[in-house]
Amino acid sequence: MSDYGITSREKDFSQWYLDIVQRAELGDHSPVRGCMVIRPNGYAIWEKMQAALDGMIKATGHRNAYFPLFIPESFLKKEAEHVEGFAPECAVVTHGGGRLLEEPLMIRPTSETIIYHMYAKWIQSYRDLPVLINQWANVVRWEMRTRLFLRTTEFLWQEGHTAHATPEEGEEETRRMLDVYRRFAEEYMALPVLMGKKTAAEKFAGALRTYSIEAMMQDGKALQAGTSHNLGQNFSRPFEVRFQDESQQWQYCWQTSWGVSTRLIGALIMAHSDDQGLVLPPRLAPIEVVVVPIWSSDEQQQAVRAYLEEVRGQLDGRVSYHIDDRDQFKPGWKFAEWELKGIPLRLEVGPRDVAKRGAVLVRRDTREKQMLSLEDVGTAVREALDHMQRDLFDRALAFRREHTYMADVYDDFQTTISEKPGFTWAHWCGGADCETRVAQETKATIRTVPFEPEDGLETQDAPPPEQGRCIVCGQPSLRRVLWGKAY
Amino acid sequence: MSDYGITSREKDFSQWYLDIVQRAELGDHSPVRGCMVIRPNGYAIWEKMQAALDGMIKATGHRNAYFPLFIPESFLKKEAEHVEGFAPECAVVTHGGGRLLEEPLMIRPTSETIIYHMYAKWIQSYRDLPVLINQWANVVRWEMRTRLFLRTTEFLWQEGHTAHATPEEGEEETRRMLDVYRRFAEEYMALPVLMGKKTAAEKFAGALRTYSIEAMMQDGKALQAGTSHNLGQNFSRPFEVRFQDESQQWQYCWQTSWGVSTRLIGALIMAHSDDQGLVLPPRLAPIEVVVVPIWSSDEQQQAVRAYLEEVRGQLDGRVSYHIDDRDQFKPGWKFAEWELKGIPLRLEVGPRDVAKRGAVLVRRDTREKQMLSLEDVGTAVREALDHMQRDLFDRALAFRREHTYMADVYDDFQTTISEKPGFTWAHWCGGADCETRVAQETKATIRTVPFEPEDGLETQDAPPPEQGRCIVCGQPSLRRVLWGKAY
Repeated sequence: MSDYGITSREKDFSQWYLDIVQRAELGDHSPVRGCMVIRPNGYAIWEKMQAALDGMIKATGHRNAYFPLFIPESFLKKEAEHVEGFAPECAVVTHGGGRLLEEPLMIRPTSETIIYHMYAKWIQSYRDLPVLINQWANVVRWEMRTRLFLRTTEFLWQEGHTAHATPEEGEEETRRMLDVYRRFAEEYMALPVLMGKKTAAEKFAGALRTYSIEAMMQDGKALQAGTSHNLGQNFSRPFEVRFQDESQQWQYCWQTSWGVSTRLIGALIMAHSDDQGLVLPPRLAPIEVVVVPIWSSDEQQQAVRAYLEEVRGQLDGRVSYHIDDRDQFKPGWKFAEWELKGIPLRLEVGPRDVAKRGAVLVRRDTREKQMLSLEDVGTAVREALDHMQRDLFDRALAFRREHTYMADVYDDFQTTISEKPGFTWAHWCGGADCETRVAQETKATIRTVPFEPEDGLETQDAPPPEQGRCIVCGQPSLRRVLWGKAY
Repeated sequence: MSDYGITSREKDFSQWYLDIVQRAELGDHSPVRGCMVIRPNGYAIWEKMQAALDGMIKATGHRNAYFPLFIPESFLKKEAEHVEGFAPECAVVTHGGGRLLEEPLMIRPTSETIIYHMYAKWIQSYRDLPVLINQWANVVRWEMRTRLFLRTTEFLWQEGHTAHATPEEGEEETRRMLDVYRRFAEEYMALPVLMGKKTAAEKFAGALRTYSIEAMMQDGKALQAGTSHNLGQNFSRPFEVRFQDESQQWQYCWQTSWGVSTRLIGALIMAHSDDQGLVLPPRLAPIEVVVVPIWSSDEQQQAVRAYLEEVRGQLDGRVSYHIDDRDQFKPGWKFAEWELKGIPLRLEVGPRDVAKRGAVLVRRDTREKQMLSLEDVGTAVREALDHMQRDLFDRALAFRREHTYMADVYDDFQTTISEKPGFTWAHWCGGADCETRVAQETKATIRTVPFEPEDGLETQDAPPPEQGRCIVCGQPSLRRVLWGKAY
């Protein structure tokens, strides 16, 4: 336990994570099994994420809408793989308005079925395509083991749902949105991610294929941070999402769905934070700068307060800031409090700074101190935020590279996976049996199968194609895939 | 049925409303009983509303958070009036993850109980107060008769929940948020509202008292557009939301809650629209101006398209606009389509406009045409939007005043209520029996009991206090109250 009331990462990474969530007041357990409360500090981060991602989703031509929370049981059953994957996780409403319902209603675990029922009604002609809709909503999946933000029975997310006239357009959309997620993760979350394909065992129940972005946390574990599914005609056929093409022939639509959730807040915490508390990338920090005035006499207080007005003049309109002028707490206590809460920059303003017409700037991540003169405050703060954003990304990328290994034989693979937290590139034959055996024996799963050059998307840092043999069965393989233990 | 495929208001107001919702693609019925789909055109209005109101809620010191969808049945039962009011309307989850739950979970019809359980955990000291939290969420109330946007089983809303150290602060907060709702309705929705108090029969189940804003629709019926509840200690006692005051004594908090919902979209439609379709106040219009280019030859098209770039220069950064340059539709068809969808202004640009270096501006509400020269387009459009916003408000206010009556005896009251759609000011003794009898005999309810000067809030257009007699029982009364039929 540090002075900050936070267990160190080295001692117990899980407890460190929970300590930060609780002490920084990001979230809390609720009295409902597996459901969390997102407290204002956590929700403010989600609002920043939403604003950025929503803008990117709209910039790619999508519009938001809202569909019902409830899904009739019969809908879920229309796609065989889908119901098998999701029915066991559903919460079921059996009574409404004091009466037993004729047909039970499932609370949406994901909304393909209810949304595509509506699409079938709305889409008639090729002129109605593409349909590009996104929804911000809550969903419920009855999870057995839950952890705040990372895996909760109810969570918040966005789910995009599109319908297209051709398979090519569907595939293009699936990849476009995957790349939007990559950009969002990298540019806003300062989180390097690997884009790639999921194996059949890991794909979305009902999808033709699933792509994902995968990030590495500070304990070396993988976190799937977003998925994009090419649904083909798997849903359009049972839900009869059809259109008349230019020659008046009825065709089934080609569909996609894609989503990210509040689990990204968990990823953000585990990627950047330290034993002093939360570290937030500036672009997602609800408050970018905290100003802590320092005084030890009324006279000093008066001088500092007057000077603060000049400091404000430097900050107004340039950054979001908060002045913590509470009198009942000492500066040192405030420093720790705001470090715990992850405010990217601290600006200290004391009597000496007044005298020198300056201020002291401290970065949350490096704790680097910088003496500023008043007229530079605005510019320096802006620059420090940009540097910190970039540095967090670079550090996370370096960390991932340092913790990524290669293994050619199963013995080595097992040792690497068990002793060296991180990712391992290893050959795989493509068979489900080998994949299952590795999962059972090492708890590692295939996080991603790299894209090929012709896919138009790149799996960053993936080794080039080469002749090799599956680490399990020895069958020939042309591609290493990425293995790791995952959240 | 007009040329626009919309039933006229005069012929069938209800059908007119539904026609607009469907034809303007604002919402749709879903396959789940009583649940609606909010289509992109409708959701875009909700996003504009959210952005404006969220800003006002934050400007008054509140922060957003998110609490669970599920409420344990036992929680709802802790406040007697509350459970009586809401339990019959609840949807109940009995199974989760394939198993029967030990305790059924109610889907939140409103979140007082689950939120105050958390407040009890978070609040310890007077230093923790006030707690000022808002939540944007979906709620479910099992309604018997539903109507798109106005009354649906699931709806979206915001619910504010606060905790204070004194009853005075609680009352002040209750009124502050009521006034925020009034400002939002007037300034953004162009909707004049009457603020006032609810009678015991109409108050929120569990509140000490409820205030509301009431609006008049074009059929003379009232629509309750927002409510603010002073909860006193009614919830803090059963949920033990307590704090230690400065002298270390444990005290129960004083609480408030307040909300508005997607029913406001219904109010917006019924207040301003006409037989040609939706009319939107400019401040809530996702697109403010539609530009319709006109040509009848390739040569003209080329000239008009080139000129459009100059028109863009006038609009960029000043207004949100859309250029409808689809070639398969005639201008007249486009005019009707955008009128139906409620875009506030239309800018027509044809070969004659190119020649004169001008454009024709048409207002959606008045259909007033204005010839503009190119260099005035930006300014004129901005001005027209401002005028339209004000005019819509003024027209709605004039309509309400024209449709508000006085009645002194019950016979007159009954005639007025049945023959003259609108509101009626009449004396009431304050007794529940008289209120019930009127409701049974005329279907009119007390929409609002006016504020008194000492309340610090004013019920607009309320007649001053005067000696009178209850229209039902003849007992003395000092105040007329407002009666009307309501949605």
